[in-house]
Amino acid sequence: MASIADNSGNEAALKRQAEILAQQPSEDRMMANAIRALAIDAVEAAKSGHPGMPMGMADAATVLYRKFLKFDAAVPDWWDRDRFVLSAGHGSMLLYALLHLTGHEGMGIEQLKTFRQLHSPAAGHPEYGEHPAIEMTTGPLGQGFATSVGMALAERMLAAKFGKSLVDHRTWVVAGDGCLQEGVSHEAAALAGHLKLNKLTVLWDDNSISIDGATSVSTSEDTLKRFAAYGWATRRIDGHNFEELAAALAFAQKSSKPTIIACRTVIGFGAPTKAGTAGVHGAALGGAEAEAAKKALGWNHLPFVVPEEIYAPWHEAGARGASTRRAWLKRLAKHPMRAEFERVMQGKLPEGWAETMSAYKAQLAETKPKLATRQASQKALEVLVPAIPELVGGSADLTGSNLTLVKGMAGVEPGNYAGRYIYYGIREFGMAAAMNGIALHGGLIPYGGTFFVFSDYMRPAIRLAALMGTRAIHVLTHDSIGLGEDGPTHQPVEHLASLRAMPNVLVLRPSDAIETAEAWEVAIKNTKGPSLLVLSRQGVPALRDVANGNKTARGAYVLAEANGPRAATIIATGTEVSLAMAAKKKLAGQGVEVAVVSAPCFELFAQQSSEYQKEVLGTALRIGVEAASGFGWERWLGPEGIFIGMTGFGASAPAEILYEHFGITEAAIVAAVKQEGN
Amino acid sequence: MASIADNSGNEAALKRQAEILAQQPSEDRMMANAIRALAIDAVEAAKSGHPGMPMGMADAATVLYRKFLKFDAAVPDWWDRDRFVLSAGHGSMLLYALLHLTGHEGMGIEQLKTFRQLHSPAAGHPEYGEHPAIEMTTGPLGQGFATSVGMALAERMLAAKFGKSLVDHRTWVVAGDGCLQEGVSHEAAALAGHLKLNKLTVLWDDNSISIDGATSVSTSEDTLKRFAAYGWATRRIDGHNFEELAAALAFAQKSSKPTIIACRTVIGFGAPTKAGTAGVHGAALGGAEAEAAKKALGWNHLPFVVPEEIYAPWHEAGARGASTRRAWLKRLAKHPMRAEFERVMQGKLPEGWAETMSAYKAQLAETKPKLATRQASQKALEVLVPAIPELVGGSADLTGSNLTLVKGMAGVEPGNYAGRYIYYGIREFGMAAAMNGIALHGGLIPYGGTFFVFSDYMRPAIRLAALMGTRAIHVLTHDSIGLGEDGPTHQPVEHLASLRAMPNVLVLRPSDAIETAEAWEVAIKNTKGPSLLVLSRQGVPALRDVANGNKTARGAYVLAEANGPRAATIIATGTEVSLAMAAKKKLAGQGVEVAVVSAPCFELFAQQSSEYQKEVLGTALRIGVEAASGFGWERWLGPEGIFIGMTGFGASAPAEILYEHFGITEAAIVAAVKQEGN
Repeated sequence: MASIADNSGNEAALKRQAEILAQQPSEDRMMANAIRALAIDAVEAAKSGHPGMPMGMADAATVLYRKFLKFDAAVPDWWDRDRFVLSAGHGSMLLYALLHLTGHEGMGIEQLKTFRQLHSPAAGHPEYGEHPAIEMTTGPLGQGFATSVGMALAERMLAAKFGKSLVDHRTWVVAGDGCLQEGVSHEAAALAGHLKLNKLTVLWDDNSISIDGATSVSTSEDTLKRFAAYGWATRRIDGHNFEELAAALAFAQKSSKPTIIACRTVIGFGAPTKAGTAGVHGAALGGAEAEAAKKALGWNHLPFVVPEEIYAPWHEAGARGASTRRAWLKRLAKHPMRAEFERVMQGKLPEGWAETMSAYKAQLAETKPKLATRQASQKALEVLVPAIPELVGGSADLTGSNLTLVKGMAGVEPGNYAGRYIYYGIREFGMAAAMNGIALHGGLIPYGGTFFVFSDYMRPAIRLAALMGTRAIHVLTHDSIGLGEDGPTHQPVEHLASLRAMPNVLVLRPSDAIETAEAWEVAIKNTKGPSLLVLSRQGVPALRDVANGNKTARGAYVLAEANGPRAATIIATGTEVSLAMAAKKKLAGQGVEVAVVSAPCFELFAQQSSEYQKEVLGTALRIGVEAASGFGWERWLGPEGIFIGMTGFGASAPAEILYEHFGITEAAIVAAVKQEGN
Repeated sequence: MASIADNSGNEAALKRQAEILAQQPSEDRMMANAIRALAIDAVEAAKSGHPGMPMGMADAATVLYRKFLKFDAAVPDWWDRDRFVLSAGHGSMLLYALLHLTGHEGMGIEQLKTFRQLHSPAAGHPEYGEHPAIEMTTGPLGQGFATSVGMALAERMLAAKFGKSLVDHRTWVVAGDGCLQEGVSHEAAALAGHLKLNKLTVLWDDNSISIDGATSVSTSEDTLKRFAAYGWATRRIDGHNFEELAAALAFAQKSSKPTIIACRTVIGFGAPTKAGTAGVHGAALGGAEAEAAKKALGWNHLPFVVPEEIYAPWHEAGARGASTRRAWLKRLAKHPMRAEFERVMQGKLPEGWAETMSAYKAQLAETKPKLATRQASQKALEVLVPAIPELVGGSADLTGSNLTLVKGMAGVEPGNYAGRYIYYGIREFGMAAAMNGIALHGGLIPYGGTFFVFSDYMRPAIRLAALMGTRAIHVLTHDSIGLGEDGPTHQPVEHLASLRAMPNVLVLRPSDAIETAEAWEVAIKNTKGPSLLVLSRQGVPALRDVANGNKTARGAYVLAEANGPRAATIIATGTEVSLAMAAKKKLAGQGVEVAVVSAPCFELFAQQSSEYQKEVLGTALRIGVEAASGFGWERWLGPEGIFIGMTGFGASAPAEILYEHFGITEAAIVAAVKQEGN
């Protein structure tokens, strides 16, 4: 937004700009100037926005869209299109202008005029769902790039499965200095380099300016050397030279490694005084500078007016992929795997999986295994992985702890993408972002594991999944003080509450093997957002003997009713449900009858009718039990309710001792009931 | 914890180990073997822990503690000691063994025997506060390293201020593959390289093993090349060769850049079958392997027994710094800046600052400025920065938006550390970790800014600050949909709740300039944990005309009482308090009398007496107003209460339109009161 930078120190940029503008403009330049003019106009109209990046990267984007990007503006959601990710999402007008100029429906000049206004598809930052050609929501820096790694990986994995005739596209990213300064860029680039994702290309808007001024204020790194260290191919070019741009993109197309192209640009290219300064990054140019910029660019048109002779080559670019797409459709029509390919790309689950899960759950009701819920999750995966071939797993280097790997899953390897399991490395945020990319790409359903406490590391990507409505499934084990000796750094306390507070996330904390299976069913069916399976390290007894339907899908339910009027209702989640059941038994022996409610998912329970909620919660004293912060429990407990859980951080000791130490015990529950409920 | 890796594939490691063990052991090796034996014994006793790293890095640690680290075991909190950070915190037994062997009080053999047991200073991961020689809590990977950058920077800044005769120490870090795969390592290393923190040295335990097996499963990067790209000096050595180790550490001491030394080690060095495998990373060796390891190491002593001839050189190492420390004390005694140095290192605030703030607040009560609270924060800083010389600021590249820079603060520059403002770059997590390091070092009070929504990026470091009780002050602006056009990616919704759920954090959301000043006072005085100032982009009217005392310090208070019995109590925070005041006025005109409670800090309000809480909240209908998720508000509103706020993500549009769109308006408050309160 505002900036402290003044416009000084940009003499070199202005000189370079003047030299370029002194040349006779090519058709490419005039096409690029249309992007610049639209960006100027839209930001002026909104009196808000970021003109600097679209103006700086217009030339590079023109070359990409005109000559390289495989797309058909008439069918923006064509499955084999190249993916284009504007990681520097604040430069959203670059994308909107490109979509408009190439003739995409739904991004007319009227839409551009409503840039940054309510209900406009041209929102402040690109928002997934607002237009089919917006591949993802960007803005939180670094995440566009990190997500694109998942897209590029999904392409390779699907190509390995369905063949090059159906799946053969590239992923292009425009990233700024901010994207590359963010830590997640390291995780993403290291993973992409390791996996040799050679169809991924990053165009780095190397303009040496960030909000606080010259990037030299805060960084001295040799970014291309860094990327080379990851195993990337690198190029440095003049980002305003069309020949160099075309040569670099052609080089990237042939590279055996992912490629980063440093496009040396002038931020706000065309602005006669502000170009090359932070002042042009995030604010309207202002009337006079805007007018002067257009004049300097040789753009003599009214605001939001693009002449026909500029539209013509842009529309040609928009239609360039049509024949390629038609040829692809023909190949698809006669492809032996057509039905399966269409199924996975449409996100339809395979037939039979639900029945297989039902049978598995019935078996659990029979055998009543005592398992840690992370083990129960692995057992569920042993059923789901063969039944749902598009399910692909992974872990951030905790495979043996998260129990995310099951038989028949080979690891994805550099150059060999036939596996179904991704060793993400110690890169939680990169993993979560890549999972978003895999889900957004389509054709695969990603799940990935880490310790629950490290959900903090990937929180920004979980948020983006929630915002986009992306089906990413997180397997988050070691979910409380129950992990024991590793201590407070590894013991989640506030994480349940903090994620329950996030819109459009399902936080599922099952209490036994059947609930864990149900939670997996819920997660698989939840196509509209991320699901978090919050699972225990330590074992829990089987609590359910009936596995019909899916009780977890209601969020909370009466697991064991009182034998008579309720003296209290004990509401618990996860590993604490078995404590509640033990307390119930103890109390019954003393003639006190309580109900136990298992509440694996607050969000789903909140969606139930108030009648159902009242029925479950009852009118008796309510006692909540969860080995976590009680923040947010008041909603279910009411003002008289008692919460038994954590009030601060955990400690390092064996789990049983910690439960005693923090007073989360059968005895505490019994005492709470008797104190109030006698 | 558990691991999927088997013990195969470690032939090369075992061969190398055998060659080394075939040599006649030097005194260094025997000293290192004491570390190994203690690590083995403690993990065996606890039946839990991570022997692999201590065994692998014992040789390097021996050289560091015996010849390089400046410390005096008798006075572990000596201000001019070198800082040692075990970033790979799971290898905690390395640190505990070192502290024990060098003769630190409070880490006797009895303490080692209680490794990972409740109340032991030898917790699962090193925990700040458990022993004075534990510089920080580590375990969440990457953060030890990132925090050490702040420590090293604090040393340079204090040296610039007080001179080399008082401040002249180094920061040493032991980091593992996990630390360096984490994204935050990129942010931290880039910042350290940029700032030329040449007194920072990282010993990388380069053992090629992580939990999922060989690191080659997930990474192919050339890490030293990456660090060279950041401007670091690099060395690759045999981590079991004492001469190479000593030469590399001596090289680091003379380097003009921060230095990373890749110590090629065998993880679990000494374990005859498991060395060089993931199997030795995070589990006890088991009786037979433990015994065989000791035999292979030539260690013929009972568990937890160290012979006197090994203690002797270790104790000598522990006392090595005593004379240096005494000389330093003499310099301090006659140093002209002694009093000021002692004051800042003791964390005592300067005289007069409180009075200056009181005068400033009185002036606000007089002038009643309409300001965005971020502007009010800047005005408070204009008072605080001159009054508290140890206050050092910064921003993650949003200086002009966060308004964190005030007159008289020069920027910290590479090689010139006299400034008080740090341009952290687009590195929120790295910033927050560095701030923790600055605070832990002592002598400085750090504050740093970013957008509130990006608190997600630095959440793991905020958590560590909360866990350690570190005074880090976060200036988090653009705190709601009130930021407008940037849209949902930039609009915090769940962040207030998610941070209120975290133990030991003060989340302060002031409503006007006076409350903002009070929030700053609270934050400055809060020496026991992080404080978050959550501030608006948009302007708010002055609401208070009295500025005596500090009402914010009580968390919530009656800002405007009802003129008669309350028909309702409207509880609001931040920018919504002025909405509540407008609604009160409107209602009064209609003959309906309500009280308005401003609640800038839930945590502080929760600490008040229940009498005070009841008095403030009243018995009438309660209406909560906050442009955020209502999660957690039930505690204050009760079951009949009404919450006016957000139920999902925001949108891109001008702020006023968004408030209308989401129904957070004066009219909505009025309607809520009248519907229930008539």
